Amino acid sequence: MRPIRPHPVRLGMVGGGSGAFIGAVHRIAARMDGRFALVAGALSSDPARAQASADDLGIRGYDDFAAMAQAEAARPDGIEAVAVVTPNHMHAAPAVAFLNAGIHVICDKPLAATAEQARQIADAARAGGARLFLTHNYSALPMVREARALVADGALGTLRLVQAEYLQGWLADDVQNKQADWRTDPARAGAGALGDIGTHAWQLAQFVTGRTPALISADLSSMVAGRAVDDDARIALRYEGGTKGGIWVSQVAVGQENGLSLRLFGSDAALEWHLQRPEQLIMTPKDGPARILTRAQDRSGSSRTPPGHPEGYLEGFANLYSDIAAIIRGDLTHEGRVPGIEAGLSGMAFIAACQASAARDGAWVAP
Amino acid sequence: MRPIRPHPVRLGMVGGGSGAFIGAVHRIAARMDGRFALVAGALSSDPARAQASADDLGIRGYDDFAAMAQAEAARPDGIEAVAVVTPNHMHAAPAVAFLNAGIHVICDKPLAATAEQARQIADAARAGGARLFLTHNYSALPMVREARALVADGALGTLRLVQAEYLQGWLADDVQNKQADWRTDPARAGAGALGDIGTHAWQLAQFVTGRTPALISADLSSMVAGRAVDDDARIALRYEGGTKGGIWVSQVAVGQENGLSLRLFGSDAALEWHLQRPEQLIMTPKDGPARILTRAQDRSGSSRTPPGHPEGYLEGFANLYSDIAAIIRGDLTHEGRVPGIEAGLSGMAFIAACQASAARDGAWVAP
Amino acid sequence: MRPIRPHPVRLGMVGGGSGAFIGAVHRIAARMDGRFALVAGALSSDPARAQASADDLGIRGYDDFAAMAQAEAARPDGIEAVAVVTPNHMHAAPAVAFLNAGIHVICDKPLAATAEQARQIADAARAGGARLFLTHNYSALPMVREARALVADGALGTLRLVQAEYLQGWLADDVQNKQADWRTDPARAGAGALGDIGTHAWQLAQFVTGRTPALISADLSSMVAGRAVDDDARIALRYEGGTKGGIWVSQVAVGQENGLSLRLFGSDAALEWHLQRPEQLIMTPKDGPARILTRAQDRSGSSRTPPGHPEGYLEGFANLYSDIAAIIRGDLTHEGRVPGIEAGLSGMAFIAACQASAARDGAWVAP
Amino acid sequence: MRPIRPHPVRLGMVGGGSGAFIGAVHRIAARMDGRFALVAGALSSDPARAQASADDLGIRGYDDFAAMAQAEAARPDGIEAVAVVTPNHMHAAPAVAFLNAGIHVICDKPLAATAEQARQIADAARAGGARLFLTHNYSALPMVREARALVADGALGTLRLVQAEYLQGWLADDVQNKQADWRTDPARAGAGALGDIGTHAWQLAQFVTGRTPALISADLSSMVAGRAVDDDARIALRYEGGTKGGIWVSQVAVGQENGLSLRLFGSDAALEWHLQRPEQLIMTPKDGPARILTRAQDRSGSSRTPPGHPEGYLEGFANLYSDIAAIIRGDLTHEGRVPGIEAGLSGMAFIAACQASAARDGAWVAP
Repeated sequence: MRPIRPHPVRLGMVGGGSGAFIGAVHRIAARMDGRFALVAGALSSDPARAQASADDLGIRGYDDFAAMAQAEAARPDGIEAVAVVTPNHMHAAPAVAFLNAGIHVICDKPLAATAEQARQIADAARAGGARLFLTHNYSALPMVREARALVADGALGTLRLVQAEYLQGWLADDVQNKQADWRTDPARAGAGALGDIGTHAWQLAQFVTGRTPALISADLSSMVAGRAVDDDARIALRYEGGTKGGIWVSQVAVGQENGLSLRLFGSDAALEWHLQRPEQLIMTPKDGPARILTRAQDRSGSSRTPPGHPEGYLEGFANLYSDIAAIIRGDLTHEGRVPGIEAGLSGMAFIAACQASAARDGAWVAP
Repeated sequence: MRPIRPHPVRLGMVGGGSGAFIGAVHRIAARMDGRFALVAGALSSDPARAQASADDLGIRGYDDFAAMAQAEAARPDGIEAVAVVTPNHMHAAPAVAFLNAGIHVICDKPLAATAEQARQIADAARAGGARLFLTHNYSALPMVREARALVADGALGTLRLVQAEYLQGWLADDVQNKQADWRTDPARAGAGALGDIGTHAWQLAQFVTGRTPALISADLSSMVAGRAVDDDARIALRYEGGTKGGIWVSQVAVGQENGLSLRLFGSDAALEWHLQRPEQLIMTPKDGPARILTRAQDRSGSSRTPPGHPEGYLEGFANLYSDIAAIIRGDLTHEGRVPGIEAGLSGMAFIAACQASAARDGAWVAP
Repeated sequence: MRPIRPHPVRLGMVGGGSGAFIGAVHRIAARMDGRFALVAGALSSDPARAQASADDLGIRGYDDFAAMAQAEAARPDGIEAVAVVTPNHMHAAPAVAFLNAGIHVICDKPLAATAEQARQIADAARAGGARLFLTHNYSALPMVREARALVADGALGTLRLVQAEYLQGWLADDVQNKQADWRTDPARAGAGALGDIGTHAWQLAQFVTGRTPALISADLSSMVAGRAVDDDARIALRYEGGTKGGIWVSQVAVGQENGLSLRLFGSDAALEWHLQRPEQLIMTPKDGPARILTRAQDRSGSSRTPPGHPEGYLEGFANLYSDIAAIIRGDLTHEGRVPGIEAGLSGMAFIAACQASAARDGAWVAP
Repeated sequence: MRPIRPHPVRLGMVGGGSGAFIGAVHRIAARMDGRFALVAGALSSDPARAQASADDLGIRGYDDFAAMAQAEAARPDGIEAVAVVTPNHMHAAPAVAFLNAGIHVICDKPLAATAEQARQIADAARAGGARLFLTHNYSALPMVREARALVADGALGTLRLVQAEYLQGWLADDVQNKQADWRTDPARAGAGALGDIGTHAWQLAQFVTGRTPALISADLSSMVAGRAVDDDARIALRYEGGTKGGIWVSQVAVGQENGLSLRLFGSDAALEWHLQRPEQLIMTPKDGPARILTRAQDRSGSSRTPPGHPEGYLEGFANLYSDIAAIIRGDLTHEGRVPGIEAGLSGMAFIAACQASAARDGAWVAP
């Protein structure tokens, strides 16, 4: 069990007003282990809605994030960290404002909608006044962390094959709703499936293997008539030393609710993990039967209940938040497992390389 | 998504000091949806430990629950509800004290260690000043609630067969630790596997089918040398009208982390649910293929995220807490799905009937 | 791979005319490994149909089994073995006739419809002129044989819990067809689900564990109106030394096509096998992750193809036939794994004990 | 149940002497339904071994296939069909010899080791004296045939995504044995994983969808040091009309015994099938729960036993053989589902296109 900690981190939020999906997820994740107290927010770009949402939550409401950054930085009891849960194109401005104000930023992925926005965030994060954390939540699930530990231990031998998939079906039609609208708008999203879920698959593979492909080749599609962003992407990967791999992401894969998976094959053993069975990690040594690892074998300590008491998406998100709280409070023990600005820039490079490769009919491009 | 609600219910806790498993679970469940604020506690029977635990949590600490009930009832900002998360034999005294003080009680299961204790709680609960809720958390999982709705809709036709299992392996040896000690002590636990997990299986079957067996026949075992309580129980069920069933619970089923399941067969269709795949409910109509229902088909609204974002044990527990908050705030919409004193008494009757049947070599006994 | 063998065993068949299910299965099983040649048959009690079926198969046809036994025994190229695939009440007469004629009998299960018939077969088999084999085919599947080997090796430690299930749904209604008619007729079948599938579950548990319960307690039902035999049976098992168990069989379990399974829990490890995933055997040691054993781990040599090339029902049946051919040809190496008269009598004792127990409301009865 | 048929087709075999894997499989497949009688063979290129193997099987033995073709064609009771189960480079010569002799050829896949060999076979097959059948056995499994029927019915709407995988791990090391030796020799095999299993994946996708990609892009690897053929291949597919797809085959995927799968996503529904669960076909309509189709839903009649009695690899192979027997006997009802020369040439084109694409760093090439 996670030790009880006093003095929760004072947290603000930008975006995430009523009706938003990911804002509510961030709030639950922040609340789950009691290590954050949400106290302020600029929850909507519409001032009236921002204030109503703040009132609902019983927190200090702001009309705009710039004013919020300034005011909170000036308060002795001001926020120590802010969650930025706006659409992609609205990450950079608030992230830079809060970082410059010395307030840590917990930013939803992908880092930004454009390379220029990403550069601005990186500059501010690297200035050092405050830190940027990126919520690649899946990499905080216990069995994913155990997978990473096994790879780091050398349990797979030489890594040969990497296959990540992230399949969803919810954009199989020309859906019109708050979630779909900005995600299918190139200006707000930057990319389609590539940014929304492709960066998760990319980071998951990178996080577990500790490796980044040297070259990628991508084929992007927009399967739904009139869609201006990619909704299916098939990417081949080449790593230094001969390791090969693939990433397949789709948002038109009918019937797939949220099909993220990772499969690794090494010279000595294989690992397989699926988000839909998040508490199992299948490890198959070359010369023996497959083993179904569970949290009983997890060495990361990333859970709250005994194995067999299913934890999932929200707990993974909360693991990340709790690690962030620990880091903010000075405990850097697990810093290496919390994605930050480098992961964010890598994700942007992945998107750009895929788009460049696809524009050249699948030419191999360095990400 | 669950609507955002202001004015969380002020909550206290009895038991659940540092190191306790279920106390921490209750706190997460209460916190997850932001509908409770934990403000007071008598967290341990050891005064120093009680205070230290309260300080850790930043809440008002009490040495003993009786003083707490009195003091909190007297404060204008006193607690409105209290979670009782002590070992079974210590449910009755605090439950009665708080109920009599007009404070709602959220009690861990089983209701008590003895029939007499259960009666005392029931008397206090039925006096009407405050309500008792029992945390049969598994029945608050979305797919379990959908299973209940399908049975209520008549989707199964005439119910013929009911099979519930709850298999664990953690007591396969003579384990000595805080969790095991009181659970294997007849005085503190009342019963072994029967009380700890058998009542969950009993309530799950009852909750989903809406039916209670007329007669049961039990075979109880203590598989581990020197164990004074049952650690394996096999119970046959007979319902009015010819429906048959079985409950099998074990805490010596090596390798089973937390294997709760329910299978129902009717004249028209079957339902199957397993805690280890909590987000799936398999429904098989008599004349067609099995269907894998997910939260996309759930009609109970008992979740926070879209289907495919795995929710589990803690979310189920939180569903119960959120429903309790709603009831306390006057919204009785879903009252029927929150277990209360009747479920508690039924569980006690189940334990007693099993013990009576086993003592008579499996004679059929009315629960 | 199974070695190529010349001189197939000359085989006859009683029953199994066109339209019969199990006769065709026996023929495929006999043919699969090339170790039998079907050369004669009394395939139907209707002489015209018997001859037409024989002609279809290009074999010597007989009007009745008695004439066949006599004639074949007299021919220098007469059959060496006969498969008896008639309804249960028609096993004894041909089995006795062929055994007495010195021709080995391969008999479908259960052994007979009545204890008296079973006794007659046993007397003839024990006379020693020829042998009786019983086609409990499931116990010839590779992973079942590996399960047996693991138990024999002591891999489970002390056996504590045994749970066998065999669930089907095809008799959920008052079905009228060739397969259903005799199976639901007490005179022809002897028992319902108990005989048809219960004996498989009984033998499977016995075969794998090497143990027979000392006492059983049964609850039998006839769920379908007007049905004269049991279609659901729930049986509790007590073994010497404190091992407990259960068998649940049903033919009204809607949606279950052929759900045979076995679960064993010992002091050191657990085993789990399901017919619907016949090539996997899950073994979970007490202190480690579950292991998915496949034919790569099988030590019985009971297969034809490398692991991963799914074998199933027919191959299991063929394993039995091939072992029988080996025994007939004098290779007794694997004799212990081929069920014979003792298994048949044990199955009859199981049925009788269940019926006796059920008649006395679940009293414990020795099988 | 398959109807009983007299007059089995007289069959010969080239290759498949003792110790061969696939020869034994063909023999079981031919034997299973009783529609072939193996009567002659040139079972080895080593005359002594050829004769010994023939004697073992009790058939007419030949030293070489050319003599066998001539002699059998001249006999009134000569073979009507011959199974060619030699390594790839030894398909063409016997296939041409038998086709020219008017004897049907049942050829193992891939069609040949070189394009020139394939052309020779095609010329002989197209001459019309006899037919060539190719044993893409997986496409004869019942649930694969049902998948094809569903696609043909339009159940998927517009086909958008096709993903086939065939993963094995048995060549993860530099294995030296009879099976591995010729398969890793470019001269004998023509290609590595591409030919051995890639053509199965290609044909499976083609068979079920009824479509052939217009362009492919391939990345081939030889992961094991010193290996002269590909052992991992990742191929992107583009179809006319915007459908995209992928094929991934590997023989270094440690722990994968025989992982063939096919996933299809259309505008209205998805289909998923895995060889390791061969009796299930998951169909998910866009707006409803996934359905687990079994042989209860199969409309192809390609099985021998009721659903729930697991059939697998050998039965699939036998389905193909039985259809071939029917065609040879003049029943062309199911001709369309038996792969022939066109499937063989398409597989060769697939291999060639992959090699050409890989040689040009993944350029898009028409197969």
